[in-house]
Amino acid sequence: MNAAAESAAPSSIEARLLRRLLVSVGNPPIEFLLGWTGERVWTHSETRVAQVRIADRATLIGLIRDPQLRFGDGYSRGTIEVTGDLVEFVAVMYRAARGAGSKSLVQRLVDVLHRPRRNTLEGSRDNIHRHYDLGNDFYSLWLGPSMSYTCAYYPAPTTTLDAAQIAKMDHVCRKLRLQPGDSVVEAGCGWGSLALHMASRYGARVRAFNISKEQIAYARRQSTQLGLDSSVEFVEDDYRNIAGKYDVFVSVGMLEHVGRENYGELGRVVRRALHSGGRGLIHSIGRNRPARLHPWIERRIFPGAYPPSLAEMMQIFEPSGLSVLDVENLRLHYAKTLRHWLERYEAAVDKVRAMFDDKLVRMWRLYLAGSVAAFETGVLQLFQVLFTTQENNEIPLTRRFMYPD
Amino acid sequence: MNAAAESAAPSSIEARLLRRLLVSVGNPPIEFLLGWTGERVWTHSETRVAQVRIADRATLIGLIRDPQLRFGDGYSRGTIEVTGDLVEFVAVMYRAARGAGSKSLVQRLVDVLHRPRRNTLEGSRDNIHRHYDLGNDFYSLWLGPSMSYTCAYYPAPTTTLDAAQIAKMDHVCRKLRLQPGDSVVEAGCGWGSLALHMASRYGARVRAFNISKEQIAYARRQSTQLGLDSSVEFVEDDYRNIAGKYDVFVSVGMLEHVGRENYGELGRVVRRALHSGGRGLIHSIGRNRPARLHPWIERRIFPGAYPPSLAEMMQIFEPSGLSVLDVENLRLHYAKTLRHWLERYEAAVDKVRAMFDDKLVRMWRLYLAGSVAAFETGVLQLFQVLFTTQENNEIPLTRRFMYPD
Repeated sequence: MNAAAESAAPSSIEARLLRRLLVSVGNPPIEFLLGWTGERVWTHSETRVAQVRIADRATLIGLIRDPQLRFGDGYSRGTIEVTGDLVEFVAVMYRAARGAGSKSLVQRLVDVLHRPRRNTLEGSRDNIHRHYDLGNDFYSLWLGPSMSYTCAYYPAPTTTLDAAQIAKMDHVCRKLRLQPGDSVVEAGCGWGSLALHMASRYGARVRAFNISKEQIAYARRQSTQLGLDSSVEFVEDDYRNIAGKYDVFVSVGMLEHVGRENYGELGRVVRRALHSGGRGLIHSIGRNRPARLHPWIERRIFPGAYPPSLAEMMQIFEPSGLSVLDVENLRLHYAKTLRHWLERYEAAVDKVRAMFDDKLVRMWRLYLAGSVAAFETGVLQLFQVLFTTQENNEIPLTRRFMYPD
Repeated sequence: MNAAAESAAPSSIEARLLRRLLVSVGNPPIEFLLGWTGERVWTHSETRVAQVRIADRATLIGLIRDPQLRFGDGYSRGTIEVTGDLVEFVAVMYRAARGAGSKSLVQRLVDVLHRPRRNTLEGSRDNIHRHYDLGNDFYSLWLGPSMSYTCAYYPAPTTTLDAAQIAKMDHVCRKLRLQPGDSVVEAGCGWGSLALHMASRYGARVRAFNISKEQIAYARRQSTQLGLDSSVEFVEDDYRNIAGKYDVFVSVGMLEHVGRENYGELGRVVRRALHSGGRGLIHSIGRNRPARLHPWIERRIFPGAYPPSLAEMMQIFEPSGLSVLDVENLRLHYAKTLRHWLERYEAAVDKVRAMFDDKLVRMWRLYLAGSVAAFETGVLQLFQVLFTTQENNEIPLTRRFMYPD
């Protein structure tokens, strides 16, 4: 008995369209329930991991016309509900899509319409404001005390999130062989945790750039509280305006917002900012091959974002007189980080609802759960690229120094 | 007093042409001596590290028309002689060229004429034969007992060449997490040292491919002597003809001979050869940015060779459903390896002369010394890329396992 034969015979035109949609996305092991008729639709013969309830015909029509964008919108509004584990649901969708191969003509047309937002100086400011200025109180609910909104580093499977965020900063500082007195420029410093860590634990002098007003204000308060104002300067400005020469360039989780069209300029900024023996590290979400960010994420969560493939990342380094020393893929660390964020988010969900509304609660849940799934299935990667100026020969022979006892 | 003023006022047209050549290659700190007139020409005001004696007018004219190719040819024939350290001489030429920027129109035209030889199945066989079938006796004079003709790995600055070649094989096996019983396919196995090491030290079953008749014959004799015929099979065939499924794909020092136009096919071969949880490693000479191999090396030493940039290497992995886990740049290890080879070569130079003639002695000396300089100045890199199939989640969290005590 094959999958098609076992599937409920669709009696309505809506059910038949949904069947076709399921086939086009690779027959994932899920079923749809049409809320207004009670019909169930599936195409996969094995146990189905989730049921997706569609509340009304308008939601269904939107979903068929543009499934990638409208699923998330319907889920946020509550006209689409998922019964079953949300992470596992997104994961089976991703796995099925990998098997399905080429996209439908309609989806390709829709992709063309969903152009990423431009990252001009002005555009970047707007794009960053939309995500990062939701409020420090909101982020502190689920990021924890480090206020680190990037992939953590788990030396062991049982490491806690907070310890893993500190371990990530130490891993980055070790890779950069950070020494007391080193001058560091950081591009995209978030709430300032890495800059403050570099100054307090390694004795570095840090200038940290960020265009998010709320994050910079938070970072400055932290710096003052910790008595680090003499060694850390937080600058509310774009990375393109970095001036001066430094021993170290570091950027953790900014490249996703830079946009491919600006990689050449980023490379020139980095090269210009480094002394001849300078070192640098760029940490970014990436891809195994070039592909657009999921349209719903790009439109509703991270406007203007684009995670590059390694070949694309090399367009920063190769034209700029920089030499790549080391690349590490930390994909499974981001899956763990996101699981920890999702747990904390769910524990604090009543507070989130009180701050915003149920739509934001659901939207953020789908974003976090979907991101766990994206890293677990290999749809997204996390690359740390360590580099130096091309003429620098002061390079340790082995990477053992990155792994102290 | 500036460089131009200090330079000997050129009295002949030949000397004036040589001066122009020196300026066009970035004013390296060397001087020319015209053998038939006794004139000296230089443009650099500081201490000159070497003197280049040109024996006759025909050699000079060749050098001015196509310096990159004709320098090596003249040096091989002995009509160009270098007084001073040969490695340092090539190194200052490379450093000056980096400063000089864009190439002359003539050099660019010459570059177009020097197309790399094609790596069709037939072409590869011919290209490989020309280099690797010079005779096992010749290579054993300076490679040492490992007969490893690729970059070694020096855990410490004082490691010997022979120990570093074994350390390289262990570093590769560790990265691949090689286990007893694992099936391995090796593409481009040289004289078989890695295949035999994987079988004897790690208990792997290895099929190793190579199109060099002399190397395969040597490898088979070694395998029989070591009693490894039941676990290692040496196949005299092209990597494109690899069949079957394996736990591990490995290729050390073959990619340089594959040719960019074949990277997509190599990626498909690798993906097809790996089980779903398979791992792989490709080790290759590379570049910080795309550039042709030095024309003299490409024509006289390694026909058809091309060391890729990382972005170019990614064309193997990105279209093929493979995920890059780790990239390590071992550039300074190859500089050390080549210094060790050059020392051994000079110690055995009388035997080389007896096997061939003075021309080959000088040609090979320039190739080895020039390669030391290329890695020391950062003209060439050495990349080890570790990867797995995109769906594989059986990945160690950290790279600490690569650095056992």
